[in-house]
Amino acid sequence: MKTLGELATLVNGTLSGDPDLELLGAGTLRSCTSTEITFLTSARLTDQLNQSDAGACVVPIGFTPPKQIPTIAVEDVEAAFISIVREIYPPVNRPRIGASSKAFISASAQLGKNVSVYPGAYIGDHVVIGDNCTIYPNVCILEDCRIGNQVQIFPNSTLYEKTVVGDNSIIHAGTVLGCNGFGYESDVTGHQPKEQLGFVEVGTDVEIGANSCIDRGTFGATRVGDGSKLDNMVQVAHNCQIGEHNILCSQVGIAGSSNTGRFVVMGGQTGIGDHLDIGDRVQLGAKTGVKQSIAPGETMLGLPAMPVRRTMQVWAVTAKLPELRSEIKRLVRTIDAMQAEQQKQHQTVEIASATVPTKVQNVA
Amino acid sequence: MKTLGELATLVNGTLSGDPDLELLGAGTLRSCTSTEITFLTSARLTDQLNQSDAGACVVPIGFTPPKQIPTIAVEDVEAAFISIVREIYPPVNRPRIGASSKAFISASAQLGKNVSVYPGAYIGDHVVIGDNCTIYPNVCILEDCRIGNQVQIFPNSTLYEKTVVGDNSIIHAGTVLGCNGFGYESDVTGHQPKEQLGFVEVGTDVEIGANSCIDRGTFGATRVGDGSKLDNMVQVAHNCQIGEHNILCSQVGIAGSSNTGRFVVMGGQTGIGDHLDIGDRVQLGAKTGVKQSIAPGETMLGLPAMPVRRTMQVWAVTAKLPELRSEIKRLVRTIDAMQAEQQKQHQTVEIASATVPTKVQNVA
Amino acid sequence: MKTLGELATLVNGTLSGDPDLELLGAGTLRSCTSTEITFLTSARLTDQLNQSDAGACVVPIGFTPPKQIPTIAVEDVEAAFISIVREIYPPVNRPRIGASSKAFISASAQLGKNVSVYPGAYIGDHVVIGDNCTIYPNVCILEDCRIGNQVQIFPNSTLYEKTVVGDNSIIHAGTVLGCNGFGYESDVTGHQPKEQLGFVEVGTDVEIGANSCIDRGTFGATRVGDGSKLDNMVQVAHNCQIGEHNILCSQVGIAGSSNTGRFVVMGGQTGIGDHLDIGDRVQLGAKTGVKQSIAPGETMLGLPAMPVRRTMQVWAVTAKLPELRSEIKRLVRTIDAMQAEQQKQHQTVEIASATVPTKVQNVA
Repeated sequence: MKTLGELATLVNGTLSGDPDLELLGAGTLRSCTSTEITFLTSARLTDQLNQSDAGACVVPIGFTPPKQIPTIAVEDVEAAFISIVREIYPPVNRPRIGASSKAFISASAQLGKNVSVYPGAYIGDHVVIGDNCTIYPNVCILEDCRIGNQVQIFPNSTLYEKTVVGDNSIIHAGTVLGCNGFGYESDVTGHQPKEQLGFVEVGTDVEIGANSCIDRGTFGATRVGDGSKLDNMVQVAHNCQIGEHNILCSQVGIAGSSNTGRFVVMGGQTGIGDHLDIGDRVQLGAKTGVKQSIAPGETMLGLPAMPVRRTMQVWAVTAKLPELRSEIKRLVRTIDAMQAEQQKQHQTVEIASATVPTKVQNVA
Repeated sequence: MKTLGELATLVNGTLSGDPDLELLGAGTLRSCTSTEITFLTSARLTDQLNQSDAGACVVPIGFTPPKQIPTIAVEDVEAAFISIVREIYPPVNRPRIGASSKAFISASAQLGKNVSVYPGAYIGDHVVIGDNCTIYPNVCILEDCRIGNQVQIFPNSTLYEKTVVGDNSIIHAGTVLGCNGFGYESDVTGHQPKEQLGFVEVGTDVEIGANSCIDRGTFGATRVGDGSKLDNMVQVAHNCQIGEHNILCSQVGIAGSSNTGRFVVMGGQTGIGDHLDIGDRVQLGAKTGVKQSIAPGETMLGLPAMPVRRTMQVWAVTAKLPELRSEIKRLVRTIDAMQAEQQKQHQTVEIASATVPTKVQNVA
Repeated sequence: MKTLGELATLVNGTLSGDPDLELLGAGTLRSCTSTEITFLTSARLTDQLNQSDAGACVVPIGFTPPKQIPTIAVEDVEAAFISIVREIYPPVNRPRIGASSKAFISASAQLGKNVSVYPGAYIGDHVVIGDNCTIYPNVCILEDCRIGNQVQIFPNSTLYEKTVVGDNSIIHAGTVLGCNGFGYESDVTGHQPKEQLGFVEVGTDVEIGANSCIDRGTFGATRVGDGSKLDNMVQVAHNCQIGEHNILCSQVGIAGSSNTGRFVVMGGQTGIGDHLDIGDRVQLGAKTGVKQSIAPGETMLGLPAMPVRRTMQVWAVTAKLPELRSEIKRLVRTIDAMQAEQQKQHQTVEIASATVPTKVQNVA
């Protein structure tokens, strides 16, 4: 709990309102409650501020809120707000703890300098871990894994044998790297698993969210390229080669042996078929279903995937399909009527043109 | 294993069939096998009973099954069947075990009365746990978490630092609360993680299924409101505010900073975009994809989401699109023919009307 | 690291290229890098070889690659390549370790012969485990579970009480069996959980991927039939009866009380509604949404599911909907014009036919 006055002083801001106002927390405009402080970076968000229950707001100098709300005015709103949040919610300071006696560490494992291994962690035979790594509680690292420097592996995640993780990468809780690929020889008696002899290789500066899965390659590596970020519950199947700096949002699934280029972005719940190539900088909207390779630079959306503009057009027409069908039915009726009329006219004209000239000629 | 006679006696029901018939299990009409007993609450389910392999059936008094099957007739079928199931599958009785010596509990953690902490659990610094809680094996609760009373946290789940869980809530196995939000500053060199300074706040009477993920807020709380129930593998991204008494079915994904009202229901595999407002009592069918805010009380379905009635109409037409296209092609051909005919008639009529009057006038 | 010469000798193949070439790894045509060896089983894959960066390739005798690449020619390419992979990446040899003193094993649990229980595993009261099983680190098996022979349960997975697993089955890391079914009695005050008294029964020779969830039955068993294979992050809700030899790809979700026949195949991210019957040998494409039961032998695709051929036709028309709408608009304009013309002709003809005969008769 902090007072508005304390927070104004902290960020060297101009206070408008009761300095003794107590603030229990902080949050965004859309999330914060009446006992919390929020921030507004631009007058364009005034509507959101009006709808917000916020108890106070950090604002840009010169901004006057239309509603009655205590404010702290500063030059750099975002920086000031981060300072305030750090004051209200001080980040946890984790001392290095070395290797806990409640962890299991194989005698043949090699740990670098300044490694924390928390209680309940399991580090198997011949595992190599670099310097400054943190292995959280109940993480399981099976045999022959190689972990770089400054790697963090969060609780309850599992690395199957031979998994490789590059420097500075972060594996979040519950994630599984190196599980057997999903490949079987099938006949009428059932499905025999194919050997999955490979492994997973995660590059440097990769972050993988919670409860994600990356399967080992059949013969070699399933790879995630340097700098790529995977959200929670992302599935990467065996033999995939995920390029550098990809952004894969939550619940994305990529089937076996598909490759992605650099800076690929996939929205949540998107699915990619097997053996496809997704080019550099391809962007895929949420829930897109991809069954063909995609050229670099394309932005696709929909099930099945099409260029986003086309999908938006298709969706617009699809939404009007009942009316379109009515229109077609109306056309059919109109045409039927016109055909009948034409038929009649045809006959009339035939009669007329058959009769008239004769008569006329008679006349003539 | 129980005999039919024992079960009839247990529920004080009227037996029809061999009292010595041995029953190994129990199940629903759709799931039970020939050695199991099932139940039928209404004569309307007679078809399902006929298709069932059930070895015996609890039935309402006065119901005569069309097929030869031993029965126990009772007044309240469901209550009697629950008693039978409890006899066949006696619920596990878990004694309170206190704090296992095989758990890790920080010296600065505070545990309430009558708390069970199972082997392999990890309870970090300054964690506060209320009375009558059960922390199952290999649960990891990081620093500064606050857990209410009568909370159950099932095995292998992870609570990142500062997670708050309200009274009577249940967190199932493998679930991860408080993982970093998926937010980056991107440029051509890659993606830099934004600080995720917030936390997760789960209300009271909440149940969260297995292997779900709720990410910490960027600056404050990601919240799940009192009484809400989340199924397995549900993703709630950072800053979301899930209202009270929501029902989120399995594999639902909600992107960042989206809020839901009270009594919202989402079917399985539904996806919600970011920064949206889903109003009170909104219901979303399975696999729905939402990219716009939804007003209270709406029932939506489809990709993209539309009111369910509209989507059903659209789907009905969509299913007939090949025929609709054929119809249109037929129309085009018809119209082409009619145009040709009209052209001909036009010429004929022109000739006729050009000729006739002249001639007629000539005549006249 | 191996040399090309060593590998050629290993598989008794004919070497073409530098025998001292060092190879650091192996992989598929689509995944391998310039320091790795790959394989080509058929000349039909020559294009992929041309695009591959592979440093060397195992080829069928008689095949001459169009590009300059060292090769080892053998009769049975796949067998030879597996030998090479095993040489480069020797499989981990896991000795039987018995019961680790760092595991928790209830005094009332019964373990068969030759069981490995790794550190951090938890085995609850009255659990029965057969012979030759491996229980990996931090697995949690709650009370009364019954595990067959030769079962492997990978790290951080959780079996709730009474779960049954048949012989030779494999449960991968992070998977949760037997979590409460998602069933509530709802009214305006909220949702009361229904009792979930049943359990999960996994057959023999089943493999379940990482981070999957199978919920316990309400009254009896949720079942997975013998020989079925589930990929990562598959959700099977309470009371489902999955038949024998099913293949359920990653992120599939099956709602409560649905049953599948034998040899059913579901593509990734497919969803099945509740209380449905999916017949024998049904195949469902990726991302399919099923809301009605499906007869045996059908192949379905789409949202909502239709026979695959129909869906492909529907998708083909859907992709052209904007053009179809333009066509219809054009038709409307054409018809409007034709109608106007017909109207004019009608009048002309009326006049003509009204006038002419009169005049003609006059004439006559």
